[in-house]
Amino acid sequence: MTEHMEPIRVGLLGLGIVGGGTFNVLARNAEEIARRAGRRIVVTKVGERDVARARARVGNDVAIEADAFAVVRDPDIDIVVELIGGVTVARELVREAIAHGKHVVTANKALLAMHGNEIFAAAREKGVMVAFEAAVAGGVPIIKAIREGLTANRIEWVAGIINGTTNYILSEMRNRGLPFQEVLAEAQRLGYAEADPTFDIEGVDAAHKLTLLASMAFGIPVQFSRAHIEGITGLSGVDIKHAETLGYRIKLLGITRRRPDGIELRVHPTLVPADRLIANVEGAMNAILVHGDAVGPTLYYGQGAGEEPTASAVVADLVDVTRLDTADPNHRVPHLAFQPEALADLPILDIGDVRSSYYLRLLVADQPGVMADIARILADNGISINAMIQSPDAGEDSADIIFLTHEAVERDVDRAIELMQQLDTVRSDVVRLRMEHLA
Amino acid sequence: MTEHMEPIRVGLLGLGIVGGGTFNVLARNAEEIARRAGRRIVVTKVGERDVARARARVGNDVAIEADAFAVVRDPDIDIVVELIGGVTVARELVREAIAHGKHVVTANKALLAMHGNEIFAAAREKGVMVAFEAAVAGGVPIIKAIREGLTANRIEWVAGIINGTTNYILSEMRNRGLPFQEVLAEAQRLGYAEADPTFDIEGVDAAHKLTLLASMAFGIPVQFSRAHIEGITGLSGVDIKHAETLGYRIKLLGITRRRPDGIELRVHPTLVPADRLIANVEGAMNAILVHGDAVGPTLYYGQGAGEEPTASAVVADLVDVTRLDTADPNHRVPHLAFQPEALADLPILDIGDVRSSYYLRLLVADQPGVMADIARILADNGISINAMIQSPDAGEDSADIIFLTHEAVERDVDRAIELMQQLDTVRSDVVRLRMEHLA
Repeated sequence: MTEHMEPIRVGLLGLGIVGGGTFNVLARNAEEIARRAGRRIVVTKVGERDVARARARVGNDVAIEADAFAVVRDPDIDIVVELIGGVTVARELVREAIAHGKHVVTANKALLAMHGNEIFAAAREKGVMVAFEAAVAGGVPIIKAIREGLTANRIEWVAGIINGTTNYILSEMRNRGLPFQEVLAEAQRLGYAEADPTFDIEGVDAAHKLTLLASMAFGIPVQFSRAHIEGITGLSGVDIKHAETLGYRIKLLGITRRRPDGIELRVHPTLVPADRLIANVEGAMNAILVHGDAVGPTLYYGQGAGEEPTASAVVADLVDVTRLDTADPNHRVPHLAFQPEALADLPILDIGDVRSSYYLRLLVADQPGVMADIARILADNGISINAMIQSPDAGEDSADIIFLTHEAVERDVDRAIELMQQLDTVRSDVVRLRMEHLA
Repeated sequence: MTEHMEPIRVGLLGLGIVGGGTFNVLARNAEEIARRAGRRIVVTKVGERDVARARARVGNDVAIEADAFAVVRDPDIDIVVELIGGVTVARELVREAIAHGKHVVTANKALLAMHGNEIFAAAREKGVMVAFEAAVAGGVPIIKAIREGLTANRIEWVAGIINGTTNYILSEMRNRGLPFQEVLAEAQRLGYAEADPTFDIEGVDAAHKLTLLASMAFGIPVQFSRAHIEGITGLSGVDIKHAETLGYRIKLLGITRRRPDGIELRVHPTLVPADRLIANVEGAMNAILVHGDAVGPTLYYGQGAGEEPTASAVVADLVDVTRLDTADPNHRVPHLAFQPEALADLPILDIGDVRSSYYLRLLVADQPGVMADIARILADNGISINAMIQSPDAGEDSADIIFLTHEAVERDVDRAIELMQQLDTVRSDVVRLRMEHLA
């Protein structure tokens, strides 16, 4: 270790779960980290409204400011770690840190998915780094993999389980045959889901993360507002069971894919063949599949949340930033993987233009001609059928039918569903789920 | 892209499978790569004995030298890519390239596992980089993950499927119930195994890779000669079947683990619980589990060999080296993850000192007291039994018995086996396989 180098001084904003974990990991592994970084990384100041709580946590050697702005403006701080969350105060703090010439490390996916373009531009102008490995998949170094590990590739698609709460809920629904609401309540009791779980279960958190992954995979600006987002609240246990019978599992996937005319950017429950590794990612774990033209499929797996897994990514960013602190900014990896002047202006496709395979379930009258009518509607709309099963569970004189389609354009599927609903013999809303083979 | 920057000039040694793939990927994705790296990366000279073949492959714009030394000494070359393989000429070429102040990118695990300490020291002295992402797990950015992605962690262990040939053979043996020799012959026909498959099937190739992973995980010099290596040639289909019945799969794993008194470094067939993701890695795919104290378990999966997957890693290294070409060497990631002056001198443990769980299979006389004798031997040697099953397959008046033990010291297990073999009632050699829970 280059003992003569001054330690790098970190200002830590927010001493909640991840902030506390970051403080602990930096302290516990200080020796190991310095042996790698060649320099000590020391939290010298903490910004935390609850000063007493912070004092109890960090001891007497660290300065504590109730006003986080006092930390970002402190000339003795080299790197600001933003772990407050949210997109209002955090945005101001990050901008202010950059304006004061400080590097920023953050786990704030919402902030970067919504305001990343502005933040990265400001950082570039001031010659500072904004590192955000912790923003996606916790401790799994997926941002480093995409941004640095796969630079040889034209990346074709990324598909990931990037929200642990929903993966936990889906795993429990499948393994124990319980309905969504019951599992959610249990997840809240166990701390796997927050008191207000909206962002998780509605897919918003996954969409924040996917937005960042898409930008780095394809070299496009962040465009969260263009993401198509469906959560798991409407998902029925019946469809999880049918999927299983058909050899699939249902996962909430974030999927982004390059098409000739633009980029797909979508989060929704997805049927995946049960023999894929990603279909077997259980509980609160995360996994991301990245497909590059040279490397083929690669997968990255680990804990996507929690105190120390997330801190692992924050500290890895601190080591990276420490290494390049005094370097010419040209040597640094661009925030969104591509040189800022080389970003592409590929549009994000409308969900209607997305291509996928589909799972369609409908309750129909058990009488001759029904199947022919439905098959005709599908054919007329250019949708070809891959498999069809009739469920034995339906009531008297009606039958639950499931179609699996080959790849089709979503707009065509929407039109076909509309036409099916107009048939007298179709007695329920058509359940429509997307299906991806990820090969 | 910073168009005004000169392209970085690459001298490519060896136009075999990986060399050809590297040339192709650099050409096909030139635009995408330059958008990331901020600079074009161009092969300006190739060293290949078969000049005519090289000419047919690279066209007329690239200089070709039959003598690779003419490439490494060329003052117009910035980075030398060594894809010749072997540890004799390649070693000279790499040393000569470094002596001439050139960065080196190589996929040569044998060279680095055997001579890495000397090569890295020479590179450090000349202020050049030696990058080797392609040396382990092909296109999977596992070296970057360990060296940069997990720097926050005290890494506890690494366990990986890091040889595709043997994983293909084991997958086929299990799925189709075929014996080793038959699958090997088929693998050779299909190109999954080389004409001389010794390095793969005897575990040597995996041990080369594991040696590098261990150094980076724990900050120790490379010590290939201390690795314990067992291949899959002695593995019987019977044990694959029994393992399956017991809920395990057998994989050739490279395992390295930190113990209070040293580092375990071992390659051998290993029983792994069938529900682990890594147990479900099939065919020629690779996967590596890394366990850090903060992040917990993380897994990295992809194609571990082949033309373009390996080229993907070579080119990613070229981008990294290009970025840091003009940077102060202090900003670079140390070759073995830890600052060279901060390497630890933890010893590699003798295989006798390794701790593992064990699978023991023996043919015994079907008579009273046999089990008691064996159980007594295990107990006397401090080995506790986790499970025992009797196989129905054995002959008349004898029985095939399998014990699964809890964690024990290998030396104690060796002694116990020796004592069992002395029992009149034990009618076969004891088959001993190691078992890891990887949790």
